[in-house]
Amino acid sequence: MNRRVLLRRRPVGAPRPDDFEVSESPIPTPEPGEILCRTLYLSIDPYMRGRMNAGRSYAASVELGQVMVGGTVSEVVESRHPGFASGDFVVGYAGWQTYAVSTGAGVRKLDPLQAPISTALGVLGMPGLTAYVGLLDIGQPAPGETVLVSAAAGAVGSVVGQIARIKGCRVVGIAGSKAKCDYAVSELGFDHCVDYRAQELLPALQAACPAGVDIYFDNVAGAALAAALKLINRNARIPLCGMIAQYNATELPSGPNLLPVLVSRALIKGFIVSDHADRLAAFLGDSTHWLREGRLKYREDVVQGLEAAPAALIGVLEGRNFGKMIVSVLPDPTRSG
Amino acid sequence: MNRRVLLRRRPVGAPRPDDFEVSESPIPTPEPGEILCRTLYLSIDPYMRGRMNAGRSYAASVELGQVMVGGTVSEVVESRHPGFASGDFVVGYAGWQTYAVSTGAGVRKLDPLQAPISTALGVLGMPGLTAYVGLLDIGQPAPGETVLVSAAAGAVGSVVGQIARIKGCRVVGIAGSKAKCDYAVSELGFDHCVDYRAQELLPALQAACPAGVDIYFDNVAGAALAAALKLINRNARIPLCGMIAQYNATELPSGPNLLPVLVSRALIKGFIVSDHADRLAAFLGDSTHWLREGRLKYREDVVQGLEAAPAALIGVLEGRNFGKMIVSVLPDPTRSG
Repeated sequence: MNRRVLLRRRPVGAPRPDDFEVSESPIPTPEPGEILCRTLYLSIDPYMRGRMNAGRSYAASVELGQVMVGGTVSEVVESRHPGFASGDFVVGYAGWQTYAVSTGAGVRKLDPLQAPISTALGVLGMPGLTAYVGLLDIGQPAPGETVLVSAAAGAVGSVVGQIARIKGCRVVGIAGSKAKCDYAVSELGFDHCVDYRAQELLPALQAACPAGVDIYFDNVAGAALAAALKLINRNARIPLCGMIAQYNATELPSGPNLLPVLVSRALIKGFIVSDHADRLAAFLGDSTHWLREGRLKYREDVVQGLEAAPAALIGVLEGRNFGKMIVSVLPDPTRSG
Repeated sequence: MNRRVLLRRRPVGAPRPDDFEVSESPIPTPEPGEILCRTLYLSIDPYMRGRMNAGRSYAASVELGQVMVGGTVSEVVESRHPGFASGDFVVGYAGWQTYAVSTGAGVRKLDPLQAPISTALGVLGMPGLTAYVGLLDIGQPAPGETVLVSAAAGAVGSVVGQIARIKGCRVVGIAGSKAKCDYAVSELGFDHCVDYRAQELLPALQAACPAGVDIYFDNVAGAALAAALKLINRNARIPLCGMIAQYNATELPSGPNLLPVLVSRALIKGFIVSDHADRLAAFLGDSTHWLREGRLKYREDVVQGLEAAPAALIGVLEGRNFGKMIVSVLPDPTRSG
């Protein structure tokens, strides 16, 4: 049977476990031109909270009773498509279910010899591309500049900081625990990381960024954005990537005063990674190279079984994950043991 | 004697008349390479409020006891500079005084046959260039797009709207009285103008912008910016030009929630006109042409005498002016009567 997690109810505020329901249905049969995939890994990402709402966002909502959307790494178990063979590993958007058929649109084959296939959901996937596009294309970092990034130990922020280091920037992170900050500095090579739960943010950032902030890569909005704006330098760039601090809010909180944006001639640019598929090849080329050189590190926070997905998303929205949140749905044949 | 208006005290909140003082000193004598100018017109602009503060802004503060800064149109009355002759008319930054010497740096000669010389402070001056750069270079208007502009009857906003019309856009203004709104529509050719003092802003803007907002040219921040962000279309551009709604604030108020900027992939860009001197020639060429064709109209709000300058600035910060605020300091010999 195909096990699926459906959206049962639209959350008000933080999602709750019973906003989801697990359902079983027959494993679908591929038509000519289609493939049948079994899900090995499901990615859990903050954007999913927006898909649970009925309101305006940058992509269509999940309908009630439908399978939750999500990025997946899968194994092709039956192919009626000339471009895929049984046994291929692919990354796509099969959603929160154990089996799915696909026409191959938006599906990309993975080479397990290049990198662990789960990385296609994180450092070599959508979060990595988000970091790459936002930092390089919008942020335009120059050597010696100070790059500040929130959610610094997360799937996007950890890549932002490491690419900024590769580009010769001074990198300061903001994260929500001592362990995450230690990881950002000791493992990822950040110059500094501020624990926003332990320190008053503005003075801590002022001390950590004595030359001000040239790029603030914002994953969270809220207090981090407000503090960062007070430290921006002339011609600062602010890629606006996510607003996790308010995804569970029941009404839009007020935002930061934008006077520093005027005074500093700063640029704020919202962006959505799905608009930037043209950068995928460059990103994969660079990132695979950096990964092999050991200059790009990653950490996965893996939970077992599709039924763990709702709690994983609830946790991600509260910052409880440490590394890229992934659900291990069915056993990965490329991993021994 | 040279009559001068000095900054006597840094205002807390709105400036008061006794934050300024009028003083007399001998008319200065030009050294070799300098010119002596008598001030015909003094420009009154919102940015002057920032110069009265000690805090961080995009230009140096006026020191206590010093002459207030300001753009001026002057007549050269004595020249020891090879580039200027007695009787020349010039635009520069002589400040709030009747006479000033200058090395000629930042001073530009005016041809009274091209346009009334006072226009060098408004439609053909800094406010006009601000509108031109912000709308065209940052806003990048395309025909058929909806352009929303606040302070629509003001020196910058009125030019923004008219250039947007020339570029084939639909133009909606926000202004603070029925008379200003009528002027924007009837005289300047705006498609619509919302009186924010008479109407609830968000529903009025929704009705006036049924296709959403592609460019919001912001002169005011505050409630207008918050409402505009709720109406932006995908890939909207928001040139951030001024924040007059908060210049008298004693602490920075909170700003708008930026979620629509993320969702719509919008761009917010602060800019300061003084960074864009490279666009002056193109601006003057286009604007002089449009002015002569009758496609670019302007209105001046003129008060008489240097002593009227403090009240004029206080009024501008409250939106009491109607058109470009100018102080007629000494008689203009190019005007008969």
